Amino acid sequence: MEAVNRVLAEDVVAEIDVPPFDRALMDGYAVRSEDTYLAQEDNPVTLKVVGSIRAGDTPDIQVKRGEAVEIATGAPIPRGCDAVVMVEYTEREGDTVKVYRGVAPHENIQYCGSDIMAGELVLRRGTLLSPRDIGALAAIGRRRVKVKRRLRVALISTGDELIDPGKPLEGYKIYDVNTYTLAASIRERGWDFKFYGIVRDREEDILRAVKRALKDNNDIVILSGGTSAGRGDLTAQVIERLGGKIHIHGLKIKPGKPTIIGSVPGEDNTPKLILGLPGYPTSCLTVFNVLFGGEGRSIRGHFPLRYLSAKGRVEYLPVSVVRGSEGYTVYPVLKGSGAITSLTYSDGYVVIGEEKEILEDEPVEVHLFGDIKFGLSIVGSHCIGVDIILREGNIHGKVINVGSIGGLLSIKRGEGDIAGIHLLGEDGQYNIPFLERYRVKDAVLVRGYIRRQGFMVRRDLPLKTLEDILKNIEKYRFINRNRGSGTRILFDRFLEERGIDRGRIRGYNLEAKTHSAVARAVATGRADIGVGIETVARRYNLRFIPIGEEYYDFLIRSERLEDEDVRRFIETLKRVDLPFKKPPNCGEIIYRC
Amino acid sequence: MEAVNRVLAEDVVAEIDVPPFDRALMDGYAVRSEDTYLAQEDNPVTLKVVGSIRAGDTPDIQVKRGEAVEIATGAPIPRGCDAVVMVEYTEREGDTVKVYRGVAPHENIQYCGSDIMAGELVLRRGTLLSPRDIGALAAIGRRRVKVKRRLRVALISTGDELIDPGKPLEGYKIYDVNTYTLAASIRERGWDFKFYGIVRDREEDILRAVKRALKDNNDIVILSGGTSAGRGDLTAQVIERLGGKIHIHGLKIKPGKPTIIGSVPGEDNTPKLILGLPGYPTSCLTVFNVLFGGEGRSIRGHFPLRYLSAKGRVEYLPVSVVRGSEGYTVYPVLKGSGAITSLTYSDGYVVIGEEKEILEDEPVEVHLFGDIKFGLSIVGSHCIGVDIILREGNIHGKVINVGSIGGLLSIKRGEGDIAGIHLLGEDGQYNIPFLERYRVKDAVLVRGYIRRQGFMVRRDLPLKTLEDILKNIEKYRFINRNRGSGTRILFDRFLEERGIDRGRIRGYNLEAKTHSAVARAVATGRADIGVGIETVARRYNLRFIPIGEEYYDFLIRSERLEDEDVRRFIETLKRVDLPFKKPPNCGEIIYRC
Repeated sequence: MEAVNRVLAEDVVAEIDVPPFDRALMDGYAVRSEDTYLAQEDNPVTLKVVGSIRAGDTPDIQVKRGEAVEIATGAPIPRGCDAVVMVEYTEREGDTVKVYRGVAPHENIQYCGSDIMAGELVLRRGTLLSPRDIGALAAIGRRRVKVKRRLRVALISTGDELIDPGKPLEGYKIYDVNTYTLAASIRERGWDFKFYGIVRDREEDILRAVKRALKDNNDIVILSGGTSAGRGDLTAQVIERLGGKIHIHGLKIKPGKPTIIGSVPGEDNTPKLILGLPGYPTSCLTVFNVLFGGEGRSIRGHFPLRYLSAKGRVEYLPVSVVRGSEGYTVYPVLKGSGAITSLTYSDGYVVIGEEKEILEDEPVEVHLFGDIKFGLSIVGSHCIGVDIILREGNIHGKVINVGSIGGLLSIKRGEGDIAGIHLLGEDGQYNIPFLERYRVKDAVLVRGYIRRQGFMVRRDLPLKTLEDILKNIEKYRFINRNRGSGTRILFDRFLEERGIDRGRIRGYNLEAKTHSAVARAVATGRADIGVGIETVARRYNLRFIPIGEEYYDFLIRSERLEDEDVRRFIETLKRVDLPFKKPPNCGEIIYRC
Repeated sequence: MEAVNRVLAEDVVAEIDVPPFDRALMDGYAVRSEDTYLAQEDNPVTLKVVGSIRAGDTPDIQVKRGEAVEIATGAPIPRGCDAVVMVEYTEREGDTVKVYRGVAPHENIQYCGSDIMAGELVLRRGTLLSPRDIGALAAIGRRRVKVKRRLRVALISTGDELIDPGKPLEGYKIYDVNTYTLAASIRERGWDFKFYGIVRDREEDILRAVKRALKDNNDIVILSGGTSAGRGDLTAQVIERLGGKIHIHGLKIKPGKPTIIGSVPGEDNTPKLILGLPGYPTSCLTVFNVLFGGEGRSIRGHFPLRYLSAKGRVEYLPVSVVRGSEGYTVYPVLKGSGAITSLTYSDGYVVIGEEKEILEDEPVEVHLFGDIKFGLSIVGSHCIGVDIILREGNIHGKVINVGSIGGLLSIKRGEGDIAGIHLLGEDGQYNIPFLERYRVKDAVLVRGYIRRQGFMVRRDLPLKTLEDILKNIEKYRFINRNRGSGTRILFDRFLEERGIDRGRIRGYNLEAKTHSAVARAVATGRADIGVGIETVARRYNLRFIPIGEEYYDFLIRSERLEDEDVRRFIETLKRVDLPFKKPPNCGEIIYRC
């Protein structure tokens, strides 16, 4: 049982036959086949039953002409018999049995050694033992086998900016991610790893760590971690100082260019593999999987968007898969190479050949990381309220953030189940004008909740009301949201309505991409005033001065309305407390298209 | 690292932003984007370099108009800057830098919280944690998470004929296989198992074992093991006596019909799954995989033979896959339902729909058990000599036993690499006449070795020479080989040449399918004389009286002759000691077609 997924280190030869005796493959009667040749449906042959043998019995019967023995599956065939008649073709009458169908010699007998012959090589050295192989070992009575020791991988994290998760985050540090993703990947493959700690980006430090790893007789040494540009060179220098060789420096794939593959002499002077992997977690894990095989099965789906690929490099594009009414739809997960969540939120990747520059509205093959657990597909603008609804409703859902317009188009194409949208029309009305403009069909709009947008201000500043802000609008430093965001549109309208020139706003062009980034800039003093949603302002303990409200509604495909998860989603939306205001018609259908 | 492949038992919400500050995505210079708008290849903008920031540094710089800061990937963006110019588009000159390409605001900056926002629900309760999820946990500094305990499966083996591997085989017992294949499969899935021993096929014994398993708070109880026909009913009775329910009795698949799926109240009165699986190891493991998901990816291949499928049931046919010159060829592994090796020697299975009756010369989809390690494909008649050559030559090869004619046809179709054949022609010549008759092309015949066929006799009988046997041929009980075997043909010719009537031979019609089964029948006294190869006679310590010799040769596809494994195979054939006679031209090409 312990040997599964281990590599066999010896040839295994059977010392017994399997089965170790001729045995019945069916329940029925052991017979001499020649006695049954004349048997027919309407003219059975009658045989005398001279005994009964069950599995495990030791038979001591010699069967003669005209005789039969009742026999159970797995029981040994008595002497004199050469076939078994299935019980279905017999009729027992006291100590005789009627046989309604003839059997050929050998029928329904599994012969001694026919499965495995004594002396047969059952499993070869080097076999990766599957449960099926374990079965063969059990069948020949082998309880112990020699296996090779597990592959040992040394993990060394390098980077001045890294600290270990679990320690408090200080200064401009980030948590070490690569050690953990690699360790988990190694463990998933059934290999062993040892962690040699986070070392600084200095040649001597790295050299010392690699030497320790080699002394411990690891098979592979992996360096990864920080993002330092010079680290590749440091790794190369370390390999050279250890008398090793660099086999590959730089892979023609995206992500994963800055990869080094080399070998260094180990303690016993045999060469050990040494790898320098890219620092970005997504790149690091992608390269690891490309090098060591990480993909499972693949599926085909439709890529509905336009994506410009890296020319001259093979690109591994992380994607998220949605099951729609007409097969799978494949969305790119575009969080940038620096993001870890681009892998967390993806189901697999699409490999784009180095000659291909554009992926656009076409079928693609997705190499899956594992099984996809499909639930609700929630495709649209991200809101923390959606997370709360899924959690409180105990609903399994996949949330894909493609913005409000992206969500609307996904519903229109029949892909996503639900899209969270907050689109302010020219007339001040939310969402409905866009459904008409984009000619969405076969969907309903369910009223969601009201999000308050406003100014976030540090509590030490003398700004408590909208008046205070308007009076001091040229005095304090602002941080704005990015163009195209709903919040930015709201702020622009706010300025317009009051006739305030954007040019007078200090920091108007300083943009942050998330509510959180705005709040943090204000909280840390890099700006004085920001614009964003109330929920985030509260989290950062900032004063919140509202500008206006917006409807965050849910667009749902009509054919999915009766789905249990969708119904539960709407019920939970109505039922639970959310950190947003709920209108009286929350959870009701306000528009059908 | 320990949490990989475990199920998350809590919602994980980020307590920090990731990244926790705005940081550079590239090596280069942090700038105010508006300063670079006019920069062009032939007309660079010159900026004053007022500092340098590496990853992990705490910057204390306020960048003003016309200034820039040298910055490394991952380093925090200094105040005043809103973009990073890649180092490739700059030229450093002392304390100034020339910028050759303008950047837009935000370019090459990863903003605080843009990957994961503080307060964001990062991972939902119920997530099966992948290495990518572990990365997200590391990124937010979570070192410990709550996970659900592993699924616990109780294994109970039933069967009077079973004994545990490792104990000596006695009487008409066989080793318990199912406990081991199931335990290995459970372990492979990352679940826990506990073994409750082999119990006899009696209701009270089974009841007692199930009660113990329920007391130990197992989630699933699996009964498997023996082949007793009544066991299904026993399981059903036990379920009823425990106050449980039988949900399914009998599956419409082959193999796997006698399956019971039920539930019984556990210690805490919640229902626990109870399964009665078929006794035959192949059936048992197939049903387990069908119920719990055992297949990985699938491939398409060609099924070259004719196979009659079970009508009215979905059949899971174990198959072996060979990579040939034109894609994959898929062979059924036909060792019968009683054999464990039908799974050991298969790469996956083909699912044949219940309406389909014949599979013949058509494309099929193979659901693979795991990765196929292709090596040499040796398709043909089985011989222990092939095993020795592979072992001694340290050659990875897959041996598929389809008989001599099957091997010859496989080579003709361009599938297998090597076929071991021993075909006696009418003129007494071996193998070559068949290559001509079957019009094999693009292949060579390599001389193999000589196998001696003869009579096997127990040493206590007064039979020492061929004379002795001829004189007593009507006195002793024979056991014969099956029709179509080379050995049978040899024996028939022996009788013919001496004018002996088959009808005078006692036991002429008693057939065994393997050399080993013949030897065992003689050794155990069930017959007195058998016919088979010398090697097996020696293994059973029987006297061997030769009848004749046959050539066991190797038919090899010409295009594979230069393959390293093929060359090594031939070299090893020439070099190693085999328990067969080698002719002087062993390993040489004796015929080209």
